[in-house]
Amino acid sequence: MTDTPHFKRVALIGIGLINSSIARVMRRDGLADSIVACARQKETRDTALSLGIVDAVTDDPAEAVTGADLIVLGVPVGACGAVAEAMAPGLEKGAIVTDVGSVKRAVVNDVLPHLKEGVHFVPGHPIAGTEHSGPAAGFAELFRGRWCILTPLAATPPEATEKVMAFWRKAGSMVEVMDVEHHDRVLAITSHLPHLIAYTIVGTVDDLSTATKSEVIRYSASGFRDFTRIAASDPVMWRDVFLNNREAVLEMLGRFSEDLTALQRAIRWGEGDKLEALFNRTRAIRRSIIEAKQA
Amino acid sequence: MTDTPHFKRVALIGIGLINSSIARVMRRDGLADSIVACARQKETRDTALSLGIVDAVTDDPAEAVTGADLIVLGVPVGACGAVAEAMAPGLEKGAIVTDVGSVKRAVVNDVLPHLKEGVHFVPGHPIAGTEHSGPAAGFAELFRGRWCILTPLAATPPEATEKVMAFWRKAGSMVEVMDVEHHDRVLAITSHLPHLIAYTIVGTVDDLSTATKSEVIRYSASGFRDFTRIAASDPVMWRDVFLNNREAVLEMLGRFSEDLTALQRAIRWGEGDKLEALFNRTRAIRRSIIEAKQA
Repeated sequence: MTDTPHFKRVALIGIGLINSSIARVMRRDGLADSIVACARQKETRDTALSLGIVDAVTDDPAEAVTGADLIVLGVPVGACGAVAEAMAPGLEKGAIVTDVGSVKRAVVNDVLPHLKEGVHFVPGHPIAGTEHSGPAAGFAELFRGRWCILTPLAATPPEATEKVMAFWRKAGSMVEVMDVEHHDRVLAITSHLPHLIAYTIVGTVDDLSTATKSEVIRYSASGFRDFTRIAASDPVMWRDVFLNNREAVLEMLGRFSEDLTALQRAIRWGEGDKLEALFNRTRAIRRSIIEAKQA
Repeated sequence: MTDTPHFKRVALIGIGLINSSIARVMRRDGLADSIVACARQKETRDTALSLGIVDAVTDDPAEAVTGADLIVLGVPVGACGAVAEAMAPGLEKGAIVTDVGSVKRAVVNDVLPHLKEGVHFVPGHPIAGTEHSGPAAGFAELFRGRWCILTPLAATPPEATEKVMAFWRKAGSMVEVMDVEHHDRVLAITSHLPHLIAYTIVGTVDDLSTATKSEVIRYSASGFRDFTRIAASDPVMWRDVFLNNREAVLEMLGRFSEDLTALQRAIRWGEGDKLEALFNRTRAIRRSIIEAKQA
């Protein structure tokens, strides 16, 4: 059984796809006395208010976190440091700060220096998303059946980690705790490299002549389509992911490029047995994903 | 309005995903007096018969096509030449031969020499599929809303093309006629390159340690998952596609590799503006696919 966590005031810094989905879960399950969203754009704040998923909005991070016992950073990872600095004056002792960024080392390095003693940081990463962005794109079921990774630090009190964990379980997620560096390596291959490759091939198509491009779109169900969903993900968020997990992404990209060159050579020299052997191996992974209920 | 085509005897050479779906369409709409399937494996023939989607089965292509007014080659493109040679003795004047292969130049070159005068060849390619194979995987709705490309030759009588076209329209497809070489170039980028890349990255993951691999599978919803569906496609079919559309695939792969190297460089040098500009461009293509109702 999952204990139901409760918060007095939840400050959502950024109110895009993920944080607006968190707001909906908190509303649905009555997990917070009040929810305040902080966003720079007036249009975003207005949308969040009119959706009825938050009680108040502000463009001032310090004001948002004042009196909050839970703060969720839901901004592109490259913006976390500046946001943490801006909210620091409002942070109160005992508050829990968590985030939802796809990179953990860079976020920890950027955020931690701005947190005063007695503020507890529980870095987090819900493995969930769609190709849509903004507060209207969120929904409470987004996290159901998905994993959420937490990477608590040596100084994080276990009770703080437990409380964040309890929230994610209420949202329907399975929670895994791991080391910051390990997270970044695993996500480099499972998420960052796939996005990089998808962005690349969609860009390659975009460079074709207009006539050819329209044919590729027409016949996209033959394969290309599968890449376009993730290549439609939020541009600023993903720019920041690649810049902030550079080493691990370049390492995995190196492996991929070697493998692609080997396959290119096999095609050029007509080595059908090598191709078939690889294509048989890759089928098994799809079956594993289906068995893991992540298909 | 689409005229309803009718055939006396349809010979399906190979009875996998595509041909078994064709059989189901023909059954559903009463388009054939009889349907015979030809397959090498006894198990496949037994399955096709027990599904009730064909009237007879045989392992002899010549026997299958005897008396047939429509023959559909539904075998891997590398096997089309040998199959055409084997069925040649049974072919009758006036018969229409079509195929469903993902490559057209190689199939035309391999099949045409075996067709006697008065047998009409209408090369075809339905842009539809799933990651599943075999006669049990087919379904009549597979082609609905999808495109089918026909690449008739100079010698193909327009009436033969029309009749094949009428079948595909009954199956729910939109039909496009194009030149053989043009087909192979467009499909190289829209289908063959995406499959090649998907096979590669899934292979890269398969080479990781068992522990890391199980984590990639667990967190695959973060991006990797989108590649695994097409990397689970039929290994022999895809081996043959790459070997038989080598030039166009290598050309598109060259473009992709250049683009990937440029992106790698941008990440290494922290050129966030270049990344963001690309990621904004690629979003637009997803919208085009949604508007084209191919998402």
